Amino acid sequence: MKLKAVNEKALTNCSASQQMLAKTTREGVETAFHRALKKKPCPYGVGGTCCRICYMGPCRVSDNAPGAATGVCGATAETISARNFGRMIAAGAAAHSDHAREVALTFLAAARGEAPGFEIRDEEKLRAVAAELGIEAAGKNKNRLAEEVGLKLLAEFGQQEGELHFIRRAPAKRQEVWQRLGVVPRGIDREIVEMMHRTSVGVDQEYVHLMLHGMRTSLADGWGGSMIATELQDILFGTPVPIRAKVNLGVLKADQVNIIVHGHEPLLPELMVAAAKDEELLLAARGVGANGINIAGICCTANEILMRKGVPVAGSVLQQELAIATGAVDAMVVDVQCVMQGLGTVARCYHTELFTTSSRAQIPGAIHLEFNHENGFEVAREIIRRAIANFPKRRAVEIPTEEVDLVAGFSHETINYMLGGRFRASYRPLNDNIINGRIRGVAAVVGCSNPRVRFGDLHTTIVRELIANNVLVLVTGCAAINCAKEGLLIPEAAELAGSGLREVCEAVGMPPVLHCGSCVDNSRLLVAGTAIVKEGGLGEDLSEVPVCGCAPEWMSEKAICIGQYFVTSGVTVGFGVAFPSTGSEKFSDYLFGGIKEHVGATWFFEPDPMAMARQIITILDEKRKALGIDVARERVLYDMEMRRKLEVV
Amino acid sequence: MKLKAVNEKALTNCSASQQMLAKTTREGVETAFHRALKKKPCPYGVGGTCCRICYMGPCRVSDNAPGAATGVCGATAETISARNFGRMIAAGAAAHSDHAREVALTFLAAARGEAPGFEIRDEEKLRAVAAELGIEAAGKNKNRLAEEVGLKLLAEFGQQEGELHFIRRAPAKRQEVWQRLGVVPRGIDREIVEMMHRTSVGVDQEYVHLMLHGMRTSLADGWGGSMIATELQDILFGTPVPIRAKVNLGVLKADQVNIIVHGHEPLLPELMVAAAKDEELLLAARGVGANGINIAGICCTANEILMRKGVPVAGSVLQQELAIATGAVDAMVVDVQCVMQGLGTVARCYHTELFTTSSRAQIPGAIHLEFNHENGFEVAREIIRRAIANFPKRRAVEIPTEEVDLVAGFSHETINYMLGGRFRASYRPLNDNIINGRIRGVAAVVGCSNPRVRFGDLHTTIVRELIANNVLVLVTGCAAINCAKEGLLIPEAAELAGSGLREVCEAVGMPPVLHCGSCVDNSRLLVAGTAIVKEGGLGEDLSEVPVCGCAPEWMSEKAICIGQYFVTSGVTVGFGVAFPSTGSEKFSDYLFGGIKEHVGATWFFEPDPMAMARQIITILDEKRKALGIDVARERVLYDMEMRRKLEVV
Repeated sequence: MKLKAVNEKALTNCSASQQMLAKTTREGVETAFHRALKKKPCPYGVGGTCCRICYMGPCRVSDNAPGAATGVCGATAETISARNFGRMIAAGAAAHSDHAREVALTFLAAARGEAPGFEIRDEEKLRAVAAELGIEAAGKNKNRLAEEVGLKLLAEFGQQEGELHFIRRAPAKRQEVWQRLGVVPRGIDREIVEMMHRTSVGVDQEYVHLMLHGMRTSLADGWGGSMIATELQDILFGTPVPIRAKVNLGVLKADQVNIIVHGHEPLLPELMVAAAKDEELLLAARGVGANGINIAGICCTANEILMRKGVPVAGSVLQQELAIATGAVDAMVVDVQCVMQGLGTVARCYHTELFTTSSRAQIPGAIHLEFNHENGFEVAREIIRRAIANFPKRRAVEIPTEEVDLVAGFSHETINYMLGGRFRASYRPLNDNIINGRIRGVAAVVGCSNPRVRFGDLHTTIVRELIANNVLVLVTGCAAINCAKEGLLIPEAAELAGSGLREVCEAVGMPPVLHCGSCVDNSRLLVAGTAIVKEGGLGEDLSEVPVCGCAPEWMSEKAICIGQYFVTSGVTVGFGVAFPSTGSEKFSDYLFGGIKEHVGATWFFEPDPMAMARQIITILDEKRKALGIDVARERVLYDMEMRRKLEVV
Repeated sequence: MKLKAVNEKALTNCSASQQMLAKTTREGVETAFHRALKKKPCPYGVGGTCCRICYMGPCRVSDNAPGAATGVCGATAETISARNFGRMIAAGAAAHSDHAREVALTFLAAARGEAPGFEIRDEEKLRAVAAELGIEAAGKNKNRLAEEVGLKLLAEFGQQEGELHFIRRAPAKRQEVWQRLGVVPRGIDREIVEMMHRTSVGVDQEYVHLMLHGMRTSLADGWGGSMIATELQDILFGTPVPIRAKVNLGVLKADQVNIIVHGHEPLLPELMVAAAKDEELLLAARGVGANGINIAGICCTANEILMRKGVPVAGSVLQQELAIATGAVDAMVVDVQCVMQGLGTVARCYHTELFTTSSRAQIPGAIHLEFNHENGFEVAREIIRRAIANFPKRRAVEIPTEEVDLVAGFSHETINYMLGGRFRASYRPLNDNIINGRIRGVAAVVGCSNPRVRFGDLHTTIVRELIANNVLVLVTGCAAINCAKEGLLIPEAAELAGSGLREVCEAVGMPPVLHCGSCVDNSRLLVAGTAIVKEGGLGEDLSEVPVCGCAPEWMSEKAICIGQYFVTSGVTVGFGVAFPSTGSEKFSDYLFGGIKEHVGATWFFEPDPMAMARQIITILDEKRKALGIDVARERVLYDMEMRRKLEVV
């Protein structure tokens, strides 16, 4: 295909991506970037006021267009945009929760010895979670205990009445907020299904009422599906600890069989990482002239196996097509979520074999080799064998040289341990440093990348500004990958931090930007935030702590669901790109303002990265002020007298 | 509001509706009809190729537009339209199933004596369903047994693995088809949630593969949620038997307190029908000068209480605003589904008080009085009291005189009993009359009404043509109401039937058009179709029987889900208005053709009612030909010799 020239430098600050963009343009290989330049977003759809839920329409509605204020049924812009928003939450929760369900089923099979290659690795976390779930652990071996934990958590998907268990992890005051609003989820699937019902024609037509169920559905994800995925993956594969690795397209090796794992569920990828060390397969690789088997990740699969195994990361979601364009990818293995249909076409332009592996997803042009927990190891080996056989078919290869160091692995447990130091695990030093002002607050910079904006650049611009202003940054998902590519995830990046944050980072030996994992691992941030509250001194609820979240380059419905569970949990969240409520003034006013009365936090929309960073800092400063810690204070060492006074209070 | 004049006669053949349309236009009260005239459907949305699932878009794609063949991610028109179709199925299944869940929870509460006003009415059906579910009934009283049945069916919503129970009701050969395709639903909510996951960004991107899960999700509705709703409602309120009643706006009474119940769940409406007979309330009504309390239904709530109680029907979904325009509706009580947001505005123009009653639905301008199974009777009485208090506030009243007789109540059990005649319940006479050609076949005419077409007219035009051609017609939902309004639901309508069908109707004393209930009661049609197969002589699978379905005026996502579960069950289905696949040639080719290889039936799209009727007749004739019964045959009376031969075969 003859493609129009693109200005690569305008599309991203990642030079490896620029190089591959120039290559694909030259070679007439169309990518998401080329398509985004050709195609404008639909103006009604983008503002959330296009309604397709019945065939009296589809109706396009606008607050401003005369005669187009409502749909045929009388639905207003605020109803339509709230319904669409509710469905985005439902779809996002469905994605995370269906991922979690797959993990729970594999976890159960592993516990029962029915999943060759899988075993319970983190017995300590297993016992901690079992205790939390009220499961008696005494005298039970790890598999027996894991089976009980697996069954109990699997039941939360289908539960029809009651409350999800992990809701109880939240600060007491936050649980009271949810009880008062009536938004505690009863079961994961039920809330998603009810959201679909409520948003179908002629059901719920009051935007705040719709959003209350949107909140409930989002909690079923954040404190339900996503949290279950993270916890079970940690027990199954090991809870992450700090680990060094490499990132960007330079991790692909000209002299090795390169296999990219892409998608979201770490199940098959974990087995592939293990299988790639198999002597027989390594011998076969040498047999075709390759010096080894190199597994690299893209998107959240990358984050999962990076966090636990230090597997190199080839790139973020927007680099999936560009990686293939190196001509050096012998196999790309995908499962679910954020996998572009364009991959099939791009793979055909090079020698890459594309494998779909989930029962839930196929793509035209891909070879479908279905993974299940019984055959996983065999599928892993088979794909590697085929990649080896494909290695000699490579044509011209051009691999960018960019390959950057990073440190990942900051689970809640790691933060607890690292900051607590030698004597006891604790968030005390973090809280103290926030109170004394060395750390201004904590910001989560998360979410996708989007070709509608200068990809990667928004994440890193915001993060640089935040750390320079002493804000500790937690990153997940593709935001983490983009920050890693600019060297922000190594301890040395502390040089870019303000003096307070820098001091803390240097004392602990940690980066100012902590990689906390994949998109489902945003649940770790809820746990970390709660740990700060429980440690004391920074308020009694998440809405009081100087924390804030943002997803400046978001594109997936999952991002909306994640954003909503943060907001529902009391954490204000900013989004860039465009926002699906802007077609309705009333609904936007609620999300950007009125919702605060309900949950003590809001959404905000800010496409400019510097303005986004400033807004986050303003929010953190307001929280500090409300807590009375807006004036930087040195820590006072309490003597016995002072302690006594404290106890009286 | 000043409204443009409308040509009422072009909008519908219902003169009562015409009269109210003229009145609303004159009075400046905007209705769905006025809005539909002002607003064209979005051309991309209507063909199913507008994609809003991620914010790299929203993308509008077209098979034909150069440079717009795919979305930014590379998704093709067929992927996008299949995804949108899948989400329509998911939403439809969610609506029916969430209705069923509410019924199941109320059923359980009734069995436990925790739902005042509710009790188990049809013990015979309870025992039959219990036996089918493998529940030991001996020695258990009805409440104890009902609790076990309720728990077992409630569990099907949350079930994570296994198969839904009522799937086993289908013909054995059909079950084999589903097993082969891998589309037997595991749990109701799980399939809906997985559909939402599969249709989110970058998951399932192969349109046939997507539709296989669409089929599974549709079965979770037809043989799951909807069937559970019907069965439990029958046990709770009584299985319908033939009953006479009245239909159209003329059922509203100038001298009585008129209360319209509208929506879908019969729970509160059943209690209201009972409460309206309360002496204290009747006295209160007389106290304000009213000669009684008149409950009338609209939409599927109407069908539910019509089928079981003979409550008059004020109209179909499109008459909800027009009913209020009579000025004689003292209260309108709504719950979920097909309730227009425009009602709030219309109600404000008259004296009508609008009550929302479901925890899942609110509307601006309505009074929210929430029903639950504990307070139901009190809510029912409270609403009636408020309607009585509102009666004296009426301004000018203009009630159309149209009030037409109908017979409803054709449950599967009724058909079995009626046709079987005096000696034993059986479908034998129906099968025999299909085999001998008196009845050409059976057509289901179902679904919504839509202001985009000449409402009501499509239903009745098709039905008249079908019965004239000896096709027995089963109707549900708003199609049933529209047919009733033209007098097609009385035995005397047999005069309009062809000679064969007429003969059968006259012999049995039944109408040629049988009202089988509400939208969830389309599950009765699956049961009836299966009974035909099991009776023998018309093939071994639903796909072989001369049956066909259509929804010529559809508008709801539920209709798509219903259509899909019929097609997945082997019954070809025609839709009018517009069809959400037409933007993609490939996906349309599959739904209208290729899908037949998988399930032995297809969709078809035909907006012209006469052409639709002809197409249905052609399909029935093809089935007759394949069965070798295309030549009309008289029944032969078998002698002993012939019977012996038959047994050898």
